[in-house]
Amino acid sequence: MTRLFNEPSAFADEMIDGFVAANSAQVRRVSGGVVRSTVSTPGTVAVVIGGGSGHYPAFGGIVGQGLAHGAAMGNLFASPSAQQVHSVAAAANLGGGVLLTYGNYAGDVLNFTAAQDRLNSEGIETRTVVVTDDIASAPLAEKHKRRGIAGDLTVFKAAAAASEAGYSLDEVVRVAELANERTRSFGVAFTGCTLPGAAEPLFTIPEGRMGVGIGIHGEPGIDETDVPTADGLAELFVSTLLSELPEGISSPDGQRAAVLLNGLGSVKYEELFVVYRRVAQLLEEAGVVIVEPEVGELVTSFDMAGASLTLFWLGTEEGSELERFWRAPADTPAYRKGSVGAVEQAAPAPTEALDAGLTENIPPATDDSRAAAAVAAAALQAIAEVIDENVGELGRIDAVAGDGDHGIGMQRGSRAASSAAVELLAVGSGARTLLQRSGDAWADRAGGTSGALWGVALRAIGDTLGDSDAASGAAVAAGVRGATTGILGFGAVVGDKTMVDALVPFADALEAGIAAGRPLTQAWADAADAATTAAAATAQLLPKMGRARPHAEKSLGTPDAGAHSFALIVQRIATVLKEQDSK
Amino acid sequence: MTRLFNEPSAFADEMIDGFVAANSAQVRRVSGGVVRSTVSTPGTVAVVIGGGSGHYPAFGGIVGQGLAHGAAMGNLFASPSAQQVHSVAAAANLGGGVLLTYGNYAGDVLNFTAAQDRLNSEGIETRTVVVTDDIASAPLAEKHKRRGIAGDLTVFKAAAAASEAGYSLDEVVRVAELANERTRSFGVAFTGCTLPGAAEPLFTIPEGRMGVGIGIHGEPGIDETDVPTADGLAELFVSTLLSELPEGISSPDGQRAAVLLNGLGSVKYEELFVVYRRVAQLLEEAGVVIVEPEVGELVTSFDMAGASLTLFWLGTEEGSELERFWRAPADTPAYRKGSVGAVEQAAPAPTEALDAGLTENIPPATDDSRAAAAVAAAALQAIAEVIDENVGELGRIDAVAGDGDHGIGMQRGSRAASSAAVELLAVGSGARTLLQRSGDAWADRAGGTSGALWGVALRAIGDTLGDSDAASGAAVAAGVRGATTGILGFGAVVGDKTMVDALVPFADALEAGIAAGRPLTQAWADAADAATTAAAATAQLLPKMGRARPHAEKSLGTPDAGAHSFALIVQRIATVLKEQDSK
Repeated sequence: MTRLFNEPSAFADEMIDGFVAANSAQVRRVSGGVVRSTVSTPGTVAVVIGGGSGHYPAFGGIVGQGLAHGAAMGNLFASPSAQQVHSVAAAANLGGGVLLTYGNYAGDVLNFTAAQDRLNSEGIETRTVVVTDDIASAPLAEKHKRRGIAGDLTVFKAAAAASEAGYSLDEVVRVAELANERTRSFGVAFTGCTLPGAAEPLFTIPEGRMGVGIGIHGEPGIDETDVPTADGLAELFVSTLLSELPEGISSPDGQRAAVLLNGLGSVKYEELFVVYRRVAQLLEEAGVVIVEPEVGELVTSFDMAGASLTLFWLGTEEGSELERFWRAPADTPAYRKGSVGAVEQAAPAPTEALDAGLTENIPPATDDSRAAAAVAAAALQAIAEVIDENVGELGRIDAVAGDGDHGIGMQRGSRAASSAAVELLAVGSGARTLLQRSGDAWADRAGGTSGALWGVALRAIGDTLGDSDAASGAAVAAGVRGATTGILGFGAVVGDKTMVDALVPFADALEAGIAAGRPLTQAWADAADAATTAAAATAQLLPKMGRARPHAEKSLGTPDAGAHSFALIVQRIATVLKEQDSK
Repeated sequence: MTRLFNEPSAFADEMIDGFVAANSAQVRRVSGGVVRSTVSTPGTVAVVIGGGSGHYPAFGGIVGQGLAHGAAMGNLFASPSAQQVHSVAAAANLGGGVLLTYGNYAGDVLNFTAAQDRLNSEGIETRTVVVTDDIASAPLAEKHKRRGIAGDLTVFKAAAAASEAGYSLDEVVRVAELANERTRSFGVAFTGCTLPGAAEPLFTIPEGRMGVGIGIHGEPGIDETDVPTADGLAELFVSTLLSELPEGISSPDGQRAAVLLNGLGSVKYEELFVVYRRVAQLLEEAGVVIVEPEVGELVTSFDMAGASLTLFWLGTEEGSELERFWRAPADTPAYRKGSVGAVEQAAPAPTEALDAGLTENIPPATDDSRAAAAVAAAALQAIAEVIDENVGELGRIDAVAGDGDHGIGMQRGSRAASSAAVELLAVGSGARTLLQRSGDAWADRAGGTSGALWGVALRAIGDTLGDSDAASGAAVAAGVRGATTGILGFGAVVGDKTMVDALVPFADALEAGIAAGRPLTQAWADAADAATTAAAATAQLLPKMGRARPHAEKSLGTPDAGAHSFALIVQRIATVLKEQDSK
């Protein structure tokens, strides 16, 4: 239960303010997150981490000497936007290139990748290593699909220590990849978490039961059992992790390993220590030499009750490269070891204002295009309204198979876009300018996967409409086709049960209706019905094979959240178009 | 909710094992708790802290360079026994004297004072400073009655830094007393906590409500309100603490202060940061210069949801003695700042076995006394049984006005005593030896107030019975009188609504019955009835005036836990005596 908040939508921002106020010796705020407030060595690689908020100390809490140079801090459980990642990386850049490293979640991959492209295009050499330590999240053969959980810390720390050692970007990437290969985690959870202002937990687990392998946002796990004893949990953790040793390690006997026992939030230190007692015994019985273990809260999930065990395999040789990097000193708000030596406070740099220039340099537009822009603004307002009405339901639907952030992400994005559109309309923007800049506002404020996709969609429609022409049915259909092409470019295909399952039939129907000579309002309404039918068809009708899902009973009949919100939106816009016609 | 445990009664011990295994770089285990595993400066003052477990990082988590030299770690929410405190202090002693410093709770005061007496008698000069920072726990005029909460940390840290600076014991005491005078805390809670194996929380607060000024074991607070916003809580915290400035500080304007925003367990870091944002703003508006703030979990209450704010007033001068001590480096498992420089691991010392010598050197005893010892052992077994049957109820009763540990403390103590008695009987102990050694086992294993009192009681009865004579009614009555005198020596008086409200009428009735020539069994049964009547009369019939109590409705009609358990015990022993007679 989250009790202490003001306006729920301001929570993440206020949290970062308070965090920075309390930890100014190590971090300072920049647009999109935080960077070190202390001087780092010029010319070294900047290690930039990030992800959604709600996982403290991940990610801002582990910025500082010996660990990350900066952290992009998204909204609660939502990826930072590409602009946030870019802004933090640019501020953290020391001239030696940038390593982006973060847990493997679709929204993060999308936004960090876009930021990487922009950084590289600006001449800041940027590479990426995603963390994939959660062995329950995909089979070994699909290791690249695994999620990142508490193993974030070992990968980040190895990379950062390599940077402190003066390694080149190539070498830092090599170390980070090796650390990721050598890091394996396995987690369990007993309860869901409740986001600020939410009336109910994101998901629930029956009292006395334990979700095995469940993700840190409640992503489906591999089993559900009764809660074991502390020793029983230690045995489950250790036996599972010893059953999947990294490549090249045939037996745990004689191997050295860092051990992290991580609490997700509501599990107490005392409970973790009772579990750790048995974990250490079991590892020692297996011949593992434990190196500088950590027991505590390293990557949390708000107030979720649960825990995970991470093994970071350092090899048989004492003082190996990975072991030196694990043992290296660090001084961050939430993670400190050894002594980093004397540090100097960096001079504060001006922070980039996110809204700078929204209404500056507005290109000239015709009256026709301004009329189209007014309809677009009305549509954006309608989108914000329909999302507001459905925000709770969208979150619940998303929590069944995803990370539960869809409702709040769409809300932040659509509100930002609608509010930008009002300002842009007032300064005489045409349709292209209004849709492009509103789309940027959506992507930036929403973060996450949906934010990036909707930003692309609005920008594509704006590109097609331009700032001169009236919005003909053909132009709108072409714009929607352009948006579809842009979104498919991220790799989803129809049938994956994502937003594109509704988007593609919608674009097809709209195009066909216009081609058949129907007026836009009619063609849109028909296409919206097609989207609604297609969105409903994304519902899982049978449990996925192979992997047991604690939420199986809930997931049956629940559509994909992105497809569902898409259908709600295009239906509401159909209403807006009808109202416009009747004016 | 506590989910991860094995045998609940083994929880605290297993927790300490795991804690030490995870933090061997800073701490090592000794009988009764932990001491630094690193070398400290010989001849300096040893700062020994402690208290019940369940408050991590208090108390073991803040042992290490720059902070405590050792921590006596009691059972969950129960004071360590005098023997535990003694053992830790003796292991921590560096030859410069010992400062015992801990939060002001009756059980801790009792046991630490007994340990101090023993240390002083052994030539280890020992002094005490109790922490009394919780301004809600008593009015300013009775500051000495206030409880210690998160302000523990500032007092411990100031004392420890003074020791590291080479201060004498007198000077360390002066610094600790000054730090305590300058430290004020104020806390709130939203939920109770659930101890391992307990089916229900120790206490509850209605959903959506907040206990204001409630203690870290659920001790009654001063008000109950709706849960405010994060900013509202910040305003309550700051306005309350600014309304009671320490002596000599007339205005906050220009004052420097360390600020601690402490989470009790289930409140998340993110929530604390949102609250801290406003706390910092308000303090800055009042002219306070914030010095090295801490936001996090410093003194917890298991999984209780709640928070407290602590201000440690350092004075107007930058770099004052208190400020230097606050800023001084520390390296402990849970609290690190700055760099303590190179440290050296200390050679491990052998740990003292608690049970050593239980059945060694048994004095000779007559058959008569062995027969009396057998009855005493049967009585101790009956005590353990009646406590087992009532352990949950005793905890709940105690949580109304106290810290909720009465049931589990009595259970640990009575089980230890009964189990010691069985061993002692087997090796031929007389009544004195059996009762004395069983009483020591009770006091040592139970810790807390009740442990110390029952230890004294059994020892006193044993002293009177001796190892030679049969247990006459007169001897038993005299023993009970001796126990009463010993317990009254701790300062409680009849009418305070404690155990002595039942004990004194029991002793009086027993004595009168024996004097009137009634057989022991009859006299005991009558006296037990008197105790039961007297225990029931300890129930509060009206709410206490002046200070609102969130549990007021529950406290009405609830007897004192110590008096109630005493009555249950003497009634059960009456049954044992009747059974013995009928054999």
